[in-house]
Amino acid sequence: MSAQPINLAQKLATFQAYFEPRTVAQFNGHDVMVAKVKGPFTWHSHADTDDFFLVLSGELTIRLRDGEVRLRPGELYVVPKGVEHCPCAEVETHVLLIEPRGTPNTGDAKTAAARVLI
Amino acid sequence: MSAQPINLAQKLATFQAYFEPRTVAQFNGHDVMVAKVKGPFTWHSHADTDDFFLVLSGELTIRLRDGEVRLRPGELYVVPKGVEHCPCAEVETHVLLIEPRGTPNTGDAKTAAARVLI
Repeated sequence: MSAQPINLAQKLATFQAYFEPRTVAQFNGHDVMVAKVKGPFTWHSHADTDDFFLVLSGELTIRLRDGEVRLRPGELYVVPKGVEHCPCAEVETHVLLIEPRGTPNTGDAKTAAARVLI
Repeated sequence: MSAQPINLAQKLATFQAYFEPRTVAQFNGHDVMVAKVKGPFTWHSHADTDDFFLVLSGELTIRLRDGEVRLRPGELYVVPKGVEHCPCAEVETHVLLIEPRGTPNTGDAKTAAARVLI
């Protein structure tokens, strides 16, 4: 039979670039993605979608205008739509992200990473 | 500041019942849930939504009419809408589930577990 699990560590091992999410599955019009992050990303917001983060390894800080949230492996956070945030990581950190298909990761199609299915 | 990570292990430690998902966050009209499963669930399908499973610990088998998929920790699978499936686990298994808010976990509101936010 053809059904295969999607192994997140195996998918993450296929690329190294930071802040370039790769789509590993699709769900109700959303891309389910893995990403490697290190260093600060850019401040941005998404006017039309919440932003889902689940940390798989490392540690992610999501800076918010009124504070920050720190996520360790097995911890998740949903940034509500319209809320400015800046993800950053001191060490290489692996995350699971979910966003509507085609959402620019920077909040702006002009600066967004390409959306690649692996 | 008020932003707190959602720690999945901590949430899972607050209940023991099998096949009774608890909502831990909301995302674009979906419930993000954790569940403990052991034994077989019921065969069912969801006419209007895909069904997202990510295994956190243990091992989950999703039986399909034409085969099955086995998920270990760090592995996910999306059952497409309309596809009959029967999740089951030989040992206690912890999973992250995502479904549109209010989706009955059995595919039928009459037999579904209550949707509880923790």
